[in-house]
Amino acid sequence: MKTIYGNDHRRHGKHHEMSGGRMVPAVECPERAERVLSQVEEAGLGEVLPPQDHGLEPLRAVHSSAYVEFLASAHERWLAEKGHAEAFPLSWPVAATAGLRASPPPIETIQAELAIYAFANDTAITAGSWAAAKQGSDVALSALDQIRAGEAGVFALCRPPGHHAGRETYGGYCYFNNAAIAAQRHLDLGGSRVAILDVDFHHGNGTQEIFYGRGEVLTVSIHGDTRQCFPFYCGHADEPGRGDGQGANLNLPLPLGSRWSEYEPSLRRAIDRLVDFAPELLILSLGVDTFAEDPITDFGLRGEDYPRLAAMLPPGMPTLFVLEGGYDLQHIGSNVVSLLSAWEAESISAGDPRA
Amino acid sequence: MKTIYGNDHRRHGKHHEMSGGRMVPAVECPERAERVLSQVEEAGLGEVLPPQDHGLEPLRAVHSSAYVEFLASAHERWLAEKGHAEAFPLSWPVAATAGLRASPPPIETIQAELAIYAFANDTAITAGSWAAAKQGSDVALSALDQIRAGEAGVFALCRPPGHHAGRETYGGYCYFNNAAIAAQRHLDLGGSRVAILDVDFHHGNGTQEIFYGRGEVLTVSIHGDTRQCFPFYCGHADEPGRGDGQGANLNLPLPLGSRWSEYEPSLRRAIDRLVDFAPELLILSLGVDTFAEDPITDFGLRGEDYPRLAAMLPPGMPTLFVLEGGYDLQHIGSNVVSLLSAWEAESISAGDPRA
Repeated sequence: MKTIYGNDHRRHGKHHEMSGGRMVPAVECPERAERVLSQVEEAGLGEVLPPQDHGLEPLRAVHSSAYVEFLASAHERWLAEKGHAEAFPLSWPVAATAGLRASPPPIETIQAELAIYAFANDTAITAGSWAAAKQGSDVALSALDQIRAGEAGVFALCRPPGHHAGRETYGGYCYFNNAAIAAQRHLDLGGSRVAILDVDFHHGNGTQEIFYGRGEVLTVSIHGDTRQCFPFYCGHADEPGRGDGQGANLNLPLPLGSRWSEYEPSLRRAIDRLVDFAPELLILSLGVDTFAEDPITDFGLRGEDYPRLAAMLPPGMPTLFVLEGGYDLQHIGSNVVSLLSAWEAESISAGDPRA
Repeated sequence: MKTIYGNDHRRHGKHHEMSGGRMVPAVECPERAERVLSQVEEAGLGEVLPPQDHGLEPLRAVHSSAYVEFLASAHERWLAEKGHAEAFPLSWPVAATAGLRASPPPIETIQAELAIYAFANDTAITAGSWAAAKQGSDVALSALDQIRAGEAGVFALCRPPGHHAGRETYGGYCYFNNAAIAAQRHLDLGGSRVAILDVDFHHGNGTQEIFYGRGEVLTVSIHGDTRQCFPFYCGHADEPGRGDGQGANLNLPLPLGSRWSEYEPSLRRAIDRLVDFAPELLILSLGVDTFAEDPITDFGLRGEDYPRLAAMLPPGMPTLFVLEGGYDLQHIGSNVVSLLSAWEAESISAGDPRA
């Protein structure tokens, strides 16, 4: 299986996040991607290719132009205004104050503009966030190119992750929604049906939001119950989609502590749903923070469960693997690569001529 | 002039705020109130009386019961969940995700519940926040009792401040809106017209919100333009009130760097407006962070401007002075007390028999 990887993610380097009321070193760090890359190479998964620049148009097909412009210039403007390396919001608009005005408020500082787009305190905008996030989207788009050129499965080794990023919101370590950008690109190039299966521990709120009113993209997320888990506020079972997207969103929240025995039935439901949907392309939002030893989550999957997950994916369906979360540096590489290797072995044994 | 003061504010002691993307020691600290108290005593302003407990009913007349219950238990629940002394939100609901659900989302953790009510990262919930905020409201209510018993002017030495707190939002160092609680109490005890003049550097967004649809409370705020200044998102000149409150809100934003020469015309407009309104009671939300040397703001008032401000207030109007912001520890006491002393001297010279 080919892997797409670029080094620009390193420019979004060591920084901080708010966690439990304190600023702590961010768990979303360059080593995550480097560990995965090392394991890709060590396991001989396949060729590692650099991403191609796809410009801004594919970003603007998912995110608003105002949001893309904001991210492109936010850090420079923040430095000019605040002089400190990491941008975080100070206050944010709430419904009660929004109701005091007949029109949107004028915004003239980056400090105020940040919170028009931010939804969380865990996501700094650093000097390299733009470069990293932009290349992250190119990694996903370049992987899509490979799939469209005939590859059965391709691994987009994206960093930062993307599934929490909405049309014009960032948070949960995510700036651009790499999986959604690839899905939309496929449609814009003539595709008609895409499914996104999100197996990250956290609900893919951004992906859900982007396609919530759209019937041509099925979004399915298996995740820690958002009554207890980030990102809170959505991700529940009673969110089926709306309008043309009615029935095209499926949330499968699971209790804290869930192991494979609890996980497998939800995964079975998810896969049944996506087989029914019959997409031309499956995008797997691949987080391995479901791992029992992940430092920030509460599921109980073990290393041997990732090949099991791969083996359950529908054979013969072109699959784009997009890296999302996973914060246990010791195991992130082996968990990701054992899943990808198992998927490829299944595809070959199923006789897919492209695998 | 009598001052109402209680020690419970000290329980909301040294803590942190997010400022410029970093956690720093909070400028809203116990020394603020202690410096003002010292100056009250040193200048011989008058008797210092403890607050009386007014229970929760006056709080619930302004804030929602759910919000009052939240603040009462938030820190205990936070400690049980997170184990760290200061509670800050992690993520918050935004319009895009709120639109994914037909009903409000279930919330089962204090981490998620915090952001239902918080609108800023500058306001920790500490072990003593509830006790301090509750007594702060009692200070304002006890001062109101004195006014209603015939005093011409009384000083509510409140800490924490209140004017940013909305019906069910906290932020800007504020938890309960002391001025609004006193205004509402006056109405609930049979009063019919109250004016709140907010001269804090920051827009009194909470006060505006609470009374925005109400005609019996005039709210006027002179403040640093919220295009550049916290709390952003409202506080502009085009917010006149709505419904029954149409015409009963007046925002007078001023540019950064404004000195007395710029300030005085806006103060004149504010006072003309409140004289026209002819309230039975004036509540002055008294922040002295308009001072040139204040560490977090950008106006240019000098010490001699505070007696000038007092001299412009309408003579003969019962006036409740409620302490809001002011973060220059060296001058907060003298600026507050020189204003109060000047007001009392004016009242006496104007022949108010109660002064």
